[in-house]
Amino acid sequence: MGFLYVPKGGDLKEEKYMSLALQLAKQGSGWVNPNPLVGAVIVKNGRVIGKGYHRRYGDPHAEREALANCLSSPVGATLYVTLTPCCHQGKTPPCTEAIIQSGISRVVIGSADPNPLVGEKSLGLLANHGIEVVTGVLKSACDAINQGFFHYIQSLTPYVVMKYAMTMDGKIATVTGASKWITGEVARTKVHEDRQLYAAIMVGIGTILADDPSLTCRLADAHQPVRIICDSTLKTPRKARVVQTAKEVPTIIATCVTDRLRIAPYLKSGCQVVTLPKTEQGVDLNALMTYLGERQIDSVLLEGGQALNGAALEAQIVHRVQTYIAPIIFGGVTAKSPIGGRGVMLPSEAYHLSKPTVTRLGGDILLESEVQYVHGTH
Amino acid sequence: MGFLYVPKGGDLKEEKYMSLALQLAKQGSGWVNPNPLVGAVIVKNGRVIGKGYHRRYGDPHAEREALANCLSSPVGATLYVTLTPCCHQGKTPPCTEAIIQSGISRVVIGSADPNPLVGEKSLGLLANHGIEVVTGVLKSACDAINQGFFHYIQSLTPYVVMKYAMTMDGKIATVTGASKWITGEVARTKVHEDRQLYAAIMVGIGTILADDPSLTCRLADAHQPVRIICDSTLKTPRKARVVQTAKEVPTIIATCVTDRLRIAPYLKSGCQVVTLPKTEQGVDLNALMTYLGERQIDSVLLEGGQALNGAALEAQIVHRVQTYIAPIIFGGVTAKSPIGGRGVMLPSEAYHLSKPTVTRLGGDILLESEVQYVHGTH
Repeated sequence: MGFLYVPKGGDLKEEKYMSLALQLAKQGSGWVNPNPLVGAVIVKNGRVIGKGYHRRYGDPHAEREALANCLSSPVGATLYVTLTPCCHQGKTPPCTEAIIQSGISRVVIGSADPNPLVGEKSLGLLANHGIEVVTGVLKSACDAINQGFFHYIQSLTPYVVMKYAMTMDGKIATVTGASKWITGEVARTKVHEDRQLYAAIMVGIGTILADDPSLTCRLADAHQPVRIICDSTLKTPRKARVVQTAKEVPTIIATCVTDRLRIAPYLKSGCQVVTLPKTEQGVDLNALMTYLGERQIDSVLLEGGQALNGAALEAQIVHRVQTYIAPIIFGGVTAKSPIGGRGVMLPSEAYHLSKPTVTRLGGDILLESEVQYVHGTH
Repeated sequence: MGFLYVPKGGDLKEEKYMSLALQLAKQGSGWVNPNPLVGAVIVKNGRVIGKGYHRRYGDPHAEREALANCLSSPVGATLYVTLTPCCHQGKTPPCTEAIIQSGISRVVIGSADPNPLVGEKSLGLLANHGIEVVTGVLKSACDAINQGFFHYIQSLTPYVVMKYAMTMDGKIATVTGASKWITGEVARTKVHEDRQLYAAIMVGIGTILADDPSLTCRLADAHQPVRIICDSTLKTPRKARVVQTAKEVPTIIATCVTDRLRIAPYLKSGCQVVTLPKTEQGVDLNALMTYLGERQIDSVLLEGGQALNGAALEAQIVHRVQTYIAPIIFGGVTAKSPIGGRGVMLPSEAYHLSKPTVTRLGGDILLESEVQYVHGTH
């Protein structure tokens, strides 16, 4: 089977419709996990006749939504979809079936299915029914919205993004420990918007004791990510905001404590408590990632302090780093920097990051990079 | 007197010639201090007939160079010059005189003279001789190359740029103190190129003891900046590279030691030693800046470690900050960050920087900002 592949700088018209499908896909952000974000557009005689996206886990896929929304018959139309249509029965019936039945004559695809065998099967089914298939249109943009999904579906552990805000001199707090606020309004709003994109937010006990945060997304109608607290010795105060609100927002305490009597009050408050092996740095973070993966938590925003950030890097569970830098200087020998732990001995042993992307957020700057471990990641 | 002012988005032809004058001006980088960089272009009938720049302190000014290089008569020509021509006798006779005598009929100017009275006098002289004067063409670009000069001429203390290289987690060394190298080739080459732009490079005794640097610019034919070592208790080893090479490259040790017997060996090695008052942080940096200003050192690149950087900010002698950020992570609780000292207590007391410019240097990123002190700078 041969499929057309549209390379970079490809057909502008194709890219325009795929771009529209991408915008639709993003509207599902935070609601579809552990499914991927998908958007679809149906075009006939140069007119968009149907649009759809995967709205929420369990709801119809984007292709079916777009078909259901068609204003006129899709027979002979082109379907633009950001990810290869599925060909298997999941929570919903296979999309390839719906496409074939609809009379659509051409399918244009962005991202490939993370499982090449499944992808090939889907494309083959469409082609065997005389449907022209084009792949790779705006591929990198389509891939970008589902990085977490691609990682999760292949490793069954969550995609972890480590986020911290620091001053121009690398401090996350002043010498007194004060840290509110380092970045400005624009950057802080982005963090709140970003939170809803993740299945979970994770912090360490240090952050709970220092800041007593709510760890919620304060935007209206936002999806609330699960809150995870790494607390090896179970020091989380019962009056902490996260415990007090655990009946409204799912809260997992990861600990090494096995004593049921100590665990019981947290369970009563609505927290979930998981007991995991202990490492030198505290809770075994690799064991925690396996546990979270089993719970279908496909993505974690790590908003840790120095200790948890250091332990997470050492455990190689971090895939991406978001460094917010504010144009201010705290100074101070004892002021904390974002990543603690044991650290590397020599510069040549440093953790390497990909060339960062740069985003201006008001006066602040956001640098984002992928972590490139030498010996593979969890 | 009314002078034409060309606002932003002005005449493209004018900007083209001013841009050429700017390129010429920059060729004097590192050689003209404490004079400003200036470039000049003479244009007649749409053809460049003369070009010049201020090459070296004591040499003719750009305007005279351009006139001397004219390929045909400058009568009726237009002179493009990056800074208002001088009207006073200095090391060389006033440029306004040469312009008036040359028969040039039009003068287009970039930066204004830092002394408004002097500037007005120059422009008046030209206008009174029937010369048309246009000011403000590519003003910000022309201003940018002489930031240090403008500061120095007004304050008689050097313009100080604090430069440091850190990891994405704000470290300037690993937990063992190792720091070679943090940034890559491209960034390190830029630092060497930059060094020759300053009258002096300054470090603290900590850097001398840790790294024994040469503090020279390794580019061929480069101007070698004066080396300044802040060493309040005179601990610089006599075998340190900076001492051993003090007869080739001027080296100033700033100390609080008054004992002549301790100072003598350094003098014998060719170092200059200046004894200054002591503050809690070491050498009184404001006194040092006054001293350097008197010595016509108009600009200093501060390549300090944590302690000197902290003291320099507290003394408010720093005007600009260059933050090189490498896409690597060292981690480590005890790994040093770039600025030490006492630091501020609350985020609201932070030193504020202007919105940084962002420059990519290979995989590294350079953020540059002006320091905005609340209570004025030295």
